[in-house]
Amino acid sequence: MARNVLILLALIMSLFAGSAKAGNWNILNVIKQHGGSLKTYCESWRMNVELNNIRDFKVVPQECTAFIGKYMTSTQYRSDAHRAVEECRVYLRSCCSFKGDGKDAWVFDVDDTLISTLPYFKKHNFGGDELNATSLEAWMRKSKQPAMEHTLDLFHEIRERGVKIFLISSRKESIRSYTVDNLINVGYYDWHKLFLRGLDDEYKQVQAYKAEIRQQLVNEGYRIWGIMGDQWSSLEGLPAAKRTFKLPNSLYYIS
Amino acid sequence: MARNVLILLALIMSLFAGSAKAGNWNILNVIKQHGGSLKTYCESWRMNVELNNIRDFKVVPQECTAFIGKYMTSTQYRSDAHRAVEECRVYLRSCCSFKGDGKDAWVFDVDDTLISTLPYFKKHNFGGDELNATSLEAWMRKSKQPAMEHTLDLFHEIRERGVKIFLISSRKESIRSYTVDNLINVGYYDWHKLFLRGLDDEYKQVQAYKAEIRQQLVNEGYRIWGIMGDQWSSLEGLPAAKRTFKLPNSLYYIS
Repeated sequence: MARNVLILLALIMSLFAGSAKAGNWNILNVIKQHGGSLKTYCESWRMNVELNNIRDFKVVPQECTAFIGKYMTSTQYRSDAHRAVEECRVYLRSCCSFKGDGKDAWVFDVDDTLISTLPYFKKHNFGGDELNATSLEAWMRKSKQPAMEHTLDLFHEIRERGVKIFLISSRKESIRSYTVDNLINVGYYDWHKLFLRGLDDEYKQVQAYKAEIRQQLVNEGYRIWGIMGDQWSSLEGLPAAKRTFKLPNSLYYIS
Repeated sequence: MARNVLILLALIMSLFAGSAKAGNWNILNVIKQHGGSLKTYCESWRMNVELNNIRDFKVVPQECTAFIGKYMTSTQYRSDAHRAVEECRVYLRSCCSFKGDGKDAWVFDVDDTLISTLPYFKKHNFGGDELNATSLEAWMRKSKQPAMEHTLDLFHEIRERGVKIFLISSRKESIRSYTVDNLINVGYYDWHKLFLRGLDDEYKQVQAYKAEIRQQLVNEGYRIWGIMGDQWSSLEGLPAAKRTFKLPNSLYYIS
């Protein structure tokens, strides 16, 4: 009996040491040093993703997929995203001397900013399975993604102020029509331009690709008053917008 | 009786509407729209501070001081900060071709990065009282701040690699000796230079002041491989470091 317990313990230790290790960091370490739990560990993972300390992760750690799934489908996630939208509204009240000369601009991401990929990830282990681009794209071609409801309202508020809205997405050019259909189906319309990745752009880092488009807009005389996105790669790099708004998303990482 | 209930309800509503409003956003809105609670509301506030969506707050919202106090003294906070340090270790393993020519540099914040202000804020409503600079400074002069234990280990690991450590703080030049005493008392030593704000710097935004010092370092030929800080103003602006690491801190905001 005691031997079985020892074997089980060894198995658990090797499992955790292998999958959750980062530096000297693993779940046992958290429990030992902080008196924490798996929940504490996974929450620290999530928080450090949002702080942009954890980058380039390929999958959500196996032991955290249930935790991340729970968060991404929770009241807390919806409230967190809603608050980001509300802070954007606070900013818009006094941020910008919109000139109405057609050169005021705002940038939105598409996935998990305007429309949600959550239904897909619900069926794919909440980011715990390595991303299969073919499968995700096939799903996107169905044009069935729901709107992020609070962003939808914000989109139209910004549009109604006469600000031109640019959508800059890392989606491929080849799914343009499905993307447009999806956006219109759930209530988005009247954006000024939708940028998608052409063949040339696919070899670039997404952050560089998005920054290049902003440079192009600035060269055309646009004033980019803000960007809202769910990935740091949509918000960082030069030229910068006057303000950025980051929506939470710990399902995947795009660099 | 019914009248008393109505009066109480009106009081609660006016309290929340007054203190917690941000756009159309208040606690009642959260509860109505998301089925959330005060905890959900305060967690969204905290998350959006860390996402750099909520900026320039003068105080922690009154209704959230208990929540923030609980987080900042929790296992979760220590685990979150520890994880940020561990991610920095992961980065250090392969990030940098340290040349050993004396020009490899690393930047740390002081407060809530190397040493903690938590004991002060425990006695001052966890950020719920507007910051009294005189009182905080008087406390700093006691040189009694505890080390952030995981950062302490990291500090020495970086130092032992032959990287020069620069401390860039928004503390005033006038408390230099107390700052040095405190750092040494808790185990920090052998940093290359400690930058504090002189009289000329006090009129600058902290982000600009810190960026100017980095520019000075770059002009002197230093390669800044990373910055660790608890405020976005320590990490953002140009010149940028190759990587930045943000520790959680929702007690105050420095812009």
